[in-house]
Amino acid sequence: MTPRSERPNRQILLAERPSGKLEAGHFKLVESTIDEPNPGEMLVRIILLSIDPANRAWMQGRTYREQLGAGDVMAGFTLCEVVAANGAPITEGTIVVCEAGWQEYALLPANAIVRPIKIRGPLTHHMSVLGITGLTAYFGLLNVGQPKSGETVVVSAAAGATGNVVGQIARIHGARAIGITGSGDKNRMLERDLGFEGSVNHRSETLRQDLAAQCPNGIDIYFDNVGGRVLEAVLPLMRTHGRIVCCGAVSQYDSATPAPGPAGVPGQLVVKRLRMEGFLVSDFIGEWVSAEEQLAVWVASGELKVLEDVVEGLDAAPSALIGILAGDNVGKRIVRVAPDPAGLSV
Amino acid sequence: MTPRSERPNRQILLAERPSGKLEAGHFKLVESTIDEPNPGEMLVRIILLSIDPANRAWMQGRTYREQLGAGDVMAGFTLCEVVAANGAPITEGTIVVCEAGWQEYALLPANAIVRPIKIRGPLTHHMSVLGITGLTAYFGLLNVGQPKSGETVVVSAAAGATGNVVGQIARIHGARAIGITGSGDKNRMLERDLGFEGSVNHRSETLRQDLAAQCPNGIDIYFDNVGGRVLEAVLPLMRTHGRIVCCGAVSQYDSATPAPGPAGVPGQLVVKRLRMEGFLVSDFIGEWVSAEEQLAVWVASGELKVLEDVVEGLDAAPSALIGILAGDNVGKRIVRVAPDPAGLSV
Repeated sequence: MTPRSERPNRQILLAERPSGKLEAGHFKLVESTIDEPNPGEMLVRIILLSIDPANRAWMQGRTYREQLGAGDVMAGFTLCEVVAANGAPITEGTIVVCEAGWQEYALLPANAIVRPIKIRGPLTHHMSVLGITGLTAYFGLLNVGQPKSGETVVVSAAAGATGNVVGQIARIHGARAIGITGSGDKNRMLERDLGFEGSVNHRSETLRQDLAAQCPNGIDIYFDNVGGRVLEAVLPLMRTHGRIVCCGAVSQYDSATPAPGPAGVPGQLVVKRLRMEGFLVSDFIGEWVSAEEQLAVWVASGELKVLEDVVEGLDAAPSALIGILAGDNVGKRIVRVAPDPAGLSV
Repeated sequence: MTPRSERPNRQILLAERPSGKLEAGHFKLVESTIDEPNPGEMLVRIILLSIDPANRAWMQGRTYREQLGAGDVMAGFTLCEVVAANGAPITEGTIVVCEAGWQEYALLPANAIVRPIKIRGPLTHHMSVLGITGLTAYFGLLNVGQPKSGETVVVSAAAGATGNVVGQIARIHGARAIGITGSGDKNRMLERDLGFEGSVNHRSETLRQDLAAQCPNGIDIYFDNVGGRVLEAVLPLMRTHGRIVCCGAVSQYDSATPAPGPAGVPGQLVVKRLRMEGFLVSDFIGEWVSAEEQLAVWVASGELKVLEDVVEGLDAAPSALIGILAGDNVGKRIVRVAPDPAGLSV
């Protein structure tokens, strides 16, 4: 038995696996203590917590990771400071991105994947535009979607963490970016601040017609973050040889009953020779460094605006996730668990 | 007015556009005469008529060709002899493949696409393995699906005109071919005569389990001719980075009400990074000659068996099409409208 240290730890557990909509009661905050690391293990302090729709999908199973069960520390991507390396080949004080979960401290096993970051600007950027969601937008649009200048790119959840970056990269590549969100305020922000050429509200009863009006030549690329009826509305508007980049299906995550798929699959795919392709950002891990470099250049030049939605305190994580599933975020939602380490050269 | 010639013509018209299942009453045989061609027009005699599920889809609209309406001569691909070139740049007596419809003779406008064929073996082969369906199998599997040796390729409508060729080309490329059909007899034929490694019946109540048993490592390529519930059953069995080749959706053609799409789209595509891609054989027209050459080599060597289902007489065309939609054909269904021209060196 490893002797207990005196270090207190606050953790948020998944108290119960949701069968329908996610609610605060599915989580439980516990006060515990954390063990000293075994040889080779690392002790990290969580600074920032990434709130992602995928967090909800992990509770349903059938994803690329193990299903979360009742009693588990809620899983999540984090930005951390290495507190004790304890023989692991990393310098104490290093800032890393890893999956440390919803807690103040975590022990990471010797084989855990931690990615030391090269700090550029605020740490939050490494959870947003220079983090997983920025890279997801980058590879999904450029490697899977392959936009050409003058093409029309439609993106759903366009004010979300990934969507806003997709639209901006499309614009930087000379394509017309049209955003789909659930509010007029978000749409005005996309057009006014981020260079989107147009936008539609997915709550409109004339969604397809609204989209058709914004895309008079049809849609070359649809970057799909939501699935469901928005995908169904987009399909008939796709141009011949169009590409549908399947990034997520957030409309399907917060429900027990799987919806039927979009009508028009596969018929529309045949007639218009569409390519519909899913991807995970991890498929492109060998290109992450160069992509981050490019994203940082665009941020520095002001071509790529950073849209973040930072919430204070670990306790706020459950409501931050519940809110994101209802679309109440603007940009990348991040929970600040602890202040930046002192003396960090930002 | 062009003066009427004495040449009689029998034609099958679409008497009424079907709203539900296609029936014999939707067609009408008429006895008419055919005009002499205007300058530049060709007069062709139809020898063979290709019966395809697409014929039914054309009545629904929303395809790559104009919707058929009541009173139109039923459209269809044909193999014809040029009777009168009438100034068109083609030698009389040439055998061509073109879209001349369900009739004995047709006038083709000067700009009609006619493809003179290089005769290899029986003329019927140019409507099956060396025709559109063979080329469809070839490009769909090799260019879109991109099979690798040892992979598992599942094909639906596997005893059909395209499906049987897909499975055989997969086998020639060192992949395991698993066929889906609607009958045990067809399945036995696929395994015994065509080198399929396994087969399942889509009418089985345990379709997904049956498929899983035949594909213990999962499915790398699904060549989809049918859409609907078979596609839905296949999706959870796809391997990471699997490819779904969307060739047709015959399960959807003979019905007025569009079915919902397959559950699992887009969720399964994201999680398993699947590529789902539609195509038309016309997209590869620049490679038709070399593909036909390769197919002919395989036929000559006996590696690729030719599966044809020839029905006699123009009058039989309506029932031949109605039957194909119910899956009663084995291999490529062709209607023989007229005997081969005398003196053809076959």
